[in-house]
This record gives sequence, structure tokens and C-alpha cells, in this order.
Amino acid sequence: MYQDFKVSSRPEQGPPRLGELRARMAETGIDAFLVPRADAHQGEYVADRDARLAWLTGFSGSAGMAVVTRDETALFVDGRYTIQARGQVADEIAVHEIPGRKPADWLVERLSAGAVLGFDAWLHTRAEIDRLEAALAGRDVALRAIDNPVDAIWTDQPGPPMGRITAFPDEIAGKTRAGKCAEIAKDLRDAGHAWAVLTLPDSICWLLNVRGSDIPRIPIAQGFALVEAATGEVRLFVHSDKIDADLLPGVEILPPESLNAALATLGGPVRLDRDTAPVILGRTLEEAGIEVAWATDPCILPKARKTDAEIEASRQAHLRDGAAMCEFLYWLDGRLADVLVGERLTEIDVVRALERFRRETGELRDISFDTIAGTGPNGAITHYRVSEESDRAVSPGDLLLVDSGGQYLDGTTDITRTMAVGDPDPEQVAAFTRVLQGMIAISHARWPKGLAGRDLDALARAPLWMAGQDYGHGTGHGVGVFLSVHEGPQRLSRQSEVPFEPGMIVSNEPGYYREGAWGIRTENLVVVVEAEPLPDGDAHREMLAFETLTWVPIDRRLIDIDTLSPAERAWIDAYHSGVANRMAGRLSPEATEWIGRVTAPLCQVV
Amino acid sequence: MYQDFKVSSRPEQGPPRLGELRARMAETGIDAFLVPRADAHQGEYVADRDARLAWLTGFSGSAGMAVVTRDETALFVDGRYTIQARGQVADEIAVHEIPGRKPADWLVERLSAGAVLGFDAWLHTRAEIDRLEAALAGRDVALRAIDNPVDAIWTDQPGPPMGRITAFPDEIAGKTRAGKCAEIAKDLRDAGHAWAVLTLPDSICWLLNVRGSDIPRIPIAQGFALVEAATGEVRLFVHSDKIDADLLPGVEILPPESLNAALATLGGPVRLDRDTAPVILGRTLEEAGIEVAWATDPCILPKARKTDAEIEASRQAHLRDGAAMCEFLYWLDGRLADVLVGERLTEIDVVRALERFRRETGELRDISFDTIAGTGPNGAITHYRVSEESDRAVSPGDLLLVDSGGQYLDGTTDITRTMAVGDPDPEQVAAFTRVLQGMIAISHARWPKGLAGRDLDALARAPLWMAGQDYGHGTGHGVGVFLSVHEGPQRLSRQSEVPFEPGMIVSNEPGYYREGAWGIRTENLVVVVEAEPLPDGDAHREMLAFETLTWVPIDRRLIDIDTLSPAERAWIDAYHSGVANRMAGRLSPEATEWIGRVTAPLCQVV
Repeated sequence: MYQDFKVSSRPEQGPPRLGELRARMAETGIDAFLVPRADAHQGEYVADRDARLAWLTGFSGSAGMAVVTRDETALFVDGRYTIQARGQVADEIAVHEIPGRKPADWLVERLSAGAVLGFDAWLHTRAEIDRLEAALAGRDVALRAIDNPVDAIWTDQPGPPMGRITAFPDEIAGKTRAGKCAEIAKDLRDAGHAWAVLTLPDSICWLLNVRGSDIPRIPIAQGFALVEAATGEVRLFVHSDKIDADLLPGVEILPPESLNAALATLGGPVRLDRDTAPVILGRTLEEAGIEVAWATDPCILPKARKTDAEIEASRQAHLRDGAAMCEFLYWLDGRLADVLVGERLTEIDVVRALERFRRETGELRDISFDTIAGTGPNGAITHYRVSEESDRAVSPGDLLLVDSGGQYLDGTTDITRTMAVGDPDPEQVAAFTRVLQGMIAISHARWPKGLAGRDLDALARAPLWMAGQDYGHGTGHGVGVFLSVHEGPQRLSRQSEVPFEPGMIVSNEPGYYREGAWGIRTENLVVVVEAEPLPDGDAHREMLAFETLTWVPIDRRLIDIDTLSPAERAWIDAYHSGVANRMAGRLSPEATEWIGRVTAPLCQVV
Repeated sequence: MYQDFKVSSRPEQGPPRLGELRARMAETGIDAFLVPRADAHQGEYVADRDARLAWLTGFSGSAGMAVVTRDETALFVDGRYTIQARGQVADEIAVHEIPGRKPADWLVERLSAGAVLGFDAWLHTRAEIDRLEAALAGRDVALRAIDNPVDAIWTDQPGPPMGRITAFPDEIAGKTRAGKCAEIAKDLRDAGHAWAVLTLPDSICWLLNVRGSDIPRIPIAQGFALVEAATGEVRLFVHSDKIDADLLPGVEILPPESLNAALATLGGPVRLDRDTAPVILGRTLEEAGIEVAWATDPCILPKARKTDAEIEASRQAHLRDGAAMCEFLYWLDGRLADVLVGERLTEIDVVRALERFRRETGELRDISFDTIAGTGPNGAITHYRVSEESDRAVSPGDLLLVDSGGQYLDGTTDITRTMAVGDPDPEQVAAFTRVLQGMIAISHARWPKGLAGRDLDALARAPLWMAGQDYGHGTGHGVGVFLSVHEGPQRLSRQSEVPFEPGMIVSNEPGYYREGAWGIRTENLVVVVEAEPLPDGDAHREMLAFETLTWVPIDRRLIDIDTLSPAERAWIDAYHSGVANRMAGRLSPEATEWIGRVTAPLCQVV
């Protein structure tokens, strides 16, 4: 079982550890210290060694930062984590919600003239430190990069992850390592850059056609890389025990500790990403007098434009994952019927069963994130993760929201379905239908080339807006191929100005949440494609569209058919017919019979 | 009759005038000179005196610029005007389409080192000259502000317009002049500005609650104004013959020629709009050592947020104008039936009739722009203006597009309807229905506060996109109250980042054009309002919506009812029922009977 349900946070362990940290700060003359959740690679998950924030405070969420002064500790988290954080940390740690309350403002109120604010220069980006410096300007506070004092007091801190690095097949990648390196090197030369520093593990894995196993949920290898513009040659900074000497012929393998020294020997301009690279790297270059070219990681956009081979592989991964989801939903349908006659089914039961069905494919490498299974009011908590303590039994009248995904060698999946437990009430049906209308609007959208997520986001929300409703998260995020389930740069969001390009995979997941009562989300993954010409279409207009990758039934009991447009009804029927066709031969006889029923046209009585 | 159909351009008059201009340029040592369509107020229409571009070249469009060198003349126009311009100017004037071809690039290819490029510093904005200077940087070309040589050779150039300035009722404005001046003065003080220079006539008319009659279609007075932050006092620079001495007590009236000298006596910072103010004004201030605060005209946003009184007045203007439109459409229905049995009806007949129905209200002050009446292929020319030469007879099978508006003391209207002549073909019906779906999507949209035109534009286009279609113009523009029919800053457009606020009036006018065949556009004006709470709506979510101002039937013969959603059908029925209710008692008996038929619910056979 990949997922576990333990609550590892123990609020009482925080205060003594904070006491030790303060003693250390006093010894070294530091008045305040920043303890972010992030590691040097700014990813969503961190290795055990890098879980400093959880170790120090008890807070286990995926984003946040503690600020420790000589006599106070504040934990800054975003709205997703406010409630969780308050439950996980000792009373002496004050929890603040960002962006309403900013760490810099909090610090300004506390630090007096001459104070020293320490930070670990591997754990913060240049952009972050620049913002902090701007906020502290004129305050006579010294920002000082120091050796991490948490590491000094954490006597049983685990070592760095030593997961094996393995080849990722060229046939799935659709491009060879040599081809990718040549492409990136050309981009660097065109931009006038001599070298690029890569600090994002998924960029490095993508570039070299490898995968790793350092952290859960994302098959990446932690490390750094340098790419030389003139030659396309790569120096890879990972521990040599993680990689077979002959896996990457021509790539020099160097210890991660030697990166900084290596930087100081390069000829500039050296390209560095101010939003993701540790601030120490730019400082090293600047101190060595080497020109820094601040620009986005050069792999991000090429990685986002999936190759035909990656798309075809993803289709296969989604069919496999879809079959597991169908078996799961068939199983769940029976269990929910049992719930109506008094049997017990909890969120953890649901998560275990779903992981079992995915494992039974024989191809599951990991789940792509901890399954969100929220019934009733838990469904309204957007980033809910069930634990033994929070585990809730499914009740008649609930909506059960299940958001999950798998990691397969040929693709990363992410799907959400919301199921009625017994007869849903009209308000649930109305909201589910609006969410579905938004999801359909994106699914069958076509648009002129050049538009970004911001330009399409309204299509997903308009049906909810019409009822005075909305949802507080983005409509969709990019997704990798056997890489991160949250990948940039494209998003379906008001915040995204990155134009969609063919090959980009995004999630399409509108939702609606009634706090304390229920939550609804329906999510498929889609890939951007050139739109097929239409008979009445303008000949000169280049248009894009989404091809759906996810094929799993949507709960018809929650659809108010009468409010749908003819095009929306046609989309649902075509989608369900597509599910039935694609699942033929992939399911057990019982699930096959069930699929036939739940994918029948909407006009047929179910 | 406000509109006329004469073609005043005579291509043959261009060459001799250009010859005179070149002689003048040679005398004064100028190698090239810019002749823009714009006047010092950067409006859409210019006074006869300022029609320099038309006088010199023959081109009569509302935007464009000629560049005259010692041996060549180039005319730069946007895509709307390429064909018209080629027809209006002599062969020796080369017509180029911007932004594909830029005047600066054309100049760079022609001007040698040491050349002098002359321009009239009253006719170009700072932003425009900055861009030109950037494009010519490093070219050793001197940009020189000079007295306009066109004025020197134009011996019978008309004098400046001397239209009377009259009061605009406080009851319609909803705010007194004193209140507005105090509001603007406070904004200036808050921004740290000592003075603001106003160069946009509609800003000045709005601020002072006056209207003018200097140019056609827009009831403005040309002039300039200074607003003092400390006192809210205004100095108005208009010819004293235009205004009664006691119309604006407390406002000093000064000759327009004295503006520049007055600027040099101000204490800074003086606020100036780099996108609209003549470049000469900033230079005068800078040469006098007075600090310039470059910022948007302070009246633009307050003017765009209509008061409750302005909105109520606009409603009344739209009902009056709507009744005239209904009488017109009833008349037109009969004439189109006659066309089917061989009678002749031309675009000019249509324009004349429509203006007659508006005049018969007894309240028409002007039309708000020259009516666009395009039948068949002329309907596909977005900015078509019929002339005696282009006038086309309406034919069976045509679509007839009529885009028009009126100026009334209580409001400015703008409406487009497209009518079938006989039985439309299925492609016309399908496209008309898609355009209507987009127009409905905007009409009944609700959205969370904070969104701009860019965030909503997709809703209007998505139905067309789905068929591979789109339109090449914005979805909507701001509209004034007895002011300009094209008013900023808000727009319904991918280009607009200005958030919508309650009281803003915009047009809602998606379209579709089949070049050489037919055009479709359906346009209502709408005003932004706080959305009424809905029973299932989120209590904490502040949402905005549009209230429709325009009440005129939409041609049901062009609607494919079967493709509409239940909500779209309900919108059309409610809209048509709203038309019938509002027009009750306002129409002739024949038109009343007709309205009853054409506004019946969609489910009823017509």
C-alpha cells in the first residue's frame, strides 16, 4: 500500500525542538530564522531528510513556512491548510494565513534595528529573497545566509534519498536524450547563454530520459545539472551510488556537493531561473564575476509540449487506469447500495480498494498523489487527505468525492468522480450539473491559436456563476508523463498567461463546495491538439481543441438532464459511448454489464 | 438628414496638393512629414478644419496616417480601411496595412543620415512620439516639431468649429459640476498631483456638465481644461464666442491658444495622459522645469461609472430609440416582403427610413454614428458606410445588417439587428444562432467582481469557435451618456484588463462575416449592475451582472431553436416578452400587432 493513514504529527514535540533551535540561534547570533517546507528543488513533495518544517513544528502540509524568533514562532500557510495546521502544531506556534498575513510584515513588527535574519540559501529562490529584501528595506535588518541550524540540532536526521536512477524508454519519450540536449543547447545559443543550471528534478529527468525514486508520488531523482550551450553536453550532479556508470554515456556524473564549486568555473552568461533555483547559486556566480542570465528553466516548455509518442503512451496509461477506475466504481456502486441498508464503508476503505484495483493492473509504479476520498462535509475540503482520525463513514444522502491518480511507466493519471449515496437532493443535482456543464464546456471547446488558460477559464465557471456559485481553485493544471501530476507552465486558470500549444496535457476539473455539507468535482485529463477542420469553419483560422484522455463514467444520477443543451447532452452520450467502447474486453464480466448500464444514452431510463 | 451619401474624395486632387506640400517642405528643410487623421483631441471624428488627411490624400476613414517624403507618399491604415483607402487615393500614394507594415519601418528604409522628420506636435501623443523615437534610434534622423505645412498650403481651410456650449442637466448627470470637480480634485491630491490637464473633450464635457456641437455624431465642445487639485477649480480653454459668460460660474474661460503659455506658469506635478494628450504639452511643461506626472486622464474612470440617474436616463433613451427601431423594423418587414415580389429597396432607402423613424421621436439630437446598412456581401464589411456609389439593392436570400444609434439628451444608443430577406439558408441560420448564443451568454452572465473584458470575452465567442468560426473585432465597447458611442476604458475584448464596475455601459455585439457573401451581427447595450442574490448562491460571493438596455426584437426566422439550451430559449422568450411589455403604448397600431407576432414564445409557430 503506497498511501498510509497515520498521523505522524505530534504537537508536543515542537516546543522542545524550538527550544534547541533558539539556543543554536543565540550561539550563532541569529535573531530570527526561516524554516520553509521547500527543499532545494522546490517540489511539492520532499524527502524525509528535508521535512524540516514537519519535524520542527508538526505541520505536515505541502506548503508553508515557519518563522522563529528568539521568543515567538509563527507558521504561515495558505487557506487550504489553516485548519490542519492549527490541529497539528503546539499552542505556542501562531498560525497565520497567507497572503492576508505576510511573514515579512510579521517580522518587521518584531525585529529591531541591527537584528540578523538567518536563512538557508539552498531552500529559498532568488525571487523569494528579493521580495523579502524589498519588504525589509530601510529596516536595518541583516539577511544572512547560514548553515541550517535545524540540521545541526536534528540528530537523527535521515540521509539524503538514494533512490536508483533508471532509463526511461526512448519509445515512450519520443525523443532521444541526444535530441533533447541538442534542442535545449540550440535554445540556449539562440538566447545568447553559455550554460544553463537545472535545479528542477523533473526537468533533469525529462532531458536525460531517466526516472528516479527519491521521493514518493513523483518518479524523479533529486540532483542538479549543467547544460553547455556550445556542445549540448550535460554534467549531472547526483550521488554516484544512485546511478549505473554506463546508464548515461557522455554525461559526467559529479557529487551534488560539488555543484557550487563547479559553477564558479563556468564562462557566462549562465542561465538561472529566479523562481525555482536556490538563491545560493546566483550568489556563487555573481561572486565569481560570472554573468547570470535570469530566465525560465529551458526545459519547462519543451517538456510541456508532449511528443506524439508521449501522448500515445498516455492514452494507453489512461485506458489501463480507466479500467481500474471502472472496476472500482462498479465495486463502489455495490458498497454504496450496502450503505443504504446499514453496512459500514469508510473513506479509508474507499482509498484502499481504489489502490488495490490500480495495483491489480500489474503496472502501477506509485499513486500520483495521496487519494482524496471525502464523503459528506469532508468532500468540501479541497485538499482533504483521510487519516485514521478523520476517517468518516459514508452515509445515505452523502456525496462521495474521490480524486486520485496513478503513476505508470507510460503515463501519469489524475481523475475525480463524485458519486451520490442514495437519492441526491435537488440542490446537489443542480450543482453537479453546473459543474459538469463547465467541464463539458472545456472538453469540447475549440479556440483560436494563441489563447492562454486565462482566456478559457470563464467557460468552465460560467454555469456556476449563473447560479451565484464558483470554486476557489484553478480549473486545471499541467500534468507530466510518468512525472509530476502538477507540472507547468500551462494552466487552466485566471492566473495563466501561457498560451496553449499542441501536446500540452492539462486537467479539467471544475468543482463546487458547500462547506460543512458536501463537495463536488469532476475531472478528466485532456491534451491540446490541432482542431480538425469543420465543414462551415473559416479556412484561414488555426484552431486548437482538447482531446480527452480519461474514459470513466460520470454518475448520471446527479445529472439534471432537462437543463442541458442539445450539445451538452450529445457530449455526455458520446463520452459514455466512448467509455463503453474503450473498456470493451478490459473489464470483468460483472463490471462490463455495469458499464453497459451506466453509459447508456441519457434519453434511456436507467 | 444627418447622414449623407456623397463621396467627397477625389483621388485626382491629391497629387497637386502633395506637390505644394513638398515645395513647402523643401523650403523649410524637412525631408519627411507626418499627416495623421487625428486632431489635438484624438477623437474618432474631426472638425472640417482638422480633416487634413482627407484634404491631402482623399482618404476619408476615421483612422490612418500619411507619411510624405520628398518623392513618395505612403498611407498607413488598418485592416478595416485597406480597400476603401485604395479606392479613394491617387495611384502615386501607396497604401499599407498596419500593424503589418509600420510607418517607422517604412521611414527607416527611406531616410538617410541627417534627415529631418517633421510633425505637428498638437496632433501626436507623447506615447506615439516615444514609439517613433525608439524605432528611429541610432538612425541619425532628427524628429522636429514644426508648424503644420498642410495648414500653410490649405488656403481655404475652414476655421475652428464654433458650436455653442450648452448645459447638461444635473438631473440626468446625477452629480453636479461642483461635486465632480471636488471628486477629481481629491483624486489628484491623493495621487500627489497639483494640476491635471484635460485634452479629451468628452472628459471636459462630463466634468462640467455641458455639451457642445463642434463635430458631428458626438455632442462635445473642443477645448482644453486645467483642474487644480487644491481647489477643484477649473480653467476652460475654449473660444469665448462658444459659451455664454454665465453658463459656468466660477470657471475661468480662456482662449485655446493660451493653453501652452498657461501651462508654463503652473506648479507641478502636473498630470498628463501620455496616450491622449498632444506631445507639445508635456514638452512645454518639461522645458519650464515643471514636473510632469504621467497618468491616465482622471475623468475617464469616473465618467465610465454611470450614476443611477444616468442609467435611468439611458433606460428611457433606449425605450424611445427602441420604439423607433420597432417602427423601422415593422416598416422594413413590409419592404422586404415587397423585395420578394420584385420591388426595389436599397441600403440608402433603409438608412433614410431609419433616420426618419428616429427623428419622429422629436428628441433626436443626432445619430450616434453613420448607420451601417449592408445587404448581402456589404454586410460582411465590418465598417461599411453606404455611399451613392456603393448603394446596393436588397435581394431575396440576402441578410441585411443594420448597425445604428441615436444621440438623445438622456442617452446614446447603439444597436445592430440582422434580418433575413426571404428564406435564409441553413448556413446563415446556423451562424446567426451561434452569434445569438454568444450574445445571450454575455447578456445573462454573472461573474465574480474583479474580472475584466478579457476574462469574459470567450463566453461570447465559444459558440462560434465550436464551429471553427470567429469574428475579427472586439465583442463590445464602452458607451457614453449623450457623449461618445465609443468610450473607454472598459471593453469586452481580449485586449481589456480594466475590471468591470457597476454603472459601466458596454455594447454586446458578437458577429460573423462570410466575406463576399453576407454578414451577421446582433448588438444590445448592457450596463454592469450588482447581481441580485440567488437562492442557491454563495452568500459571501460578490457578483456582477449585465442589465440589458436595448429592447428590440431579434429576427426569429434566423434562429435554429433545436440547438439552443433551455436557458438560452428562456432568455430569448423573456427578452421578447420584455420587448412587448416595454413597447406597449409606444407604437402605432400596425407595429403593435407586428410586435405581438414577432415576440411570441419560440415554442409557438410564427
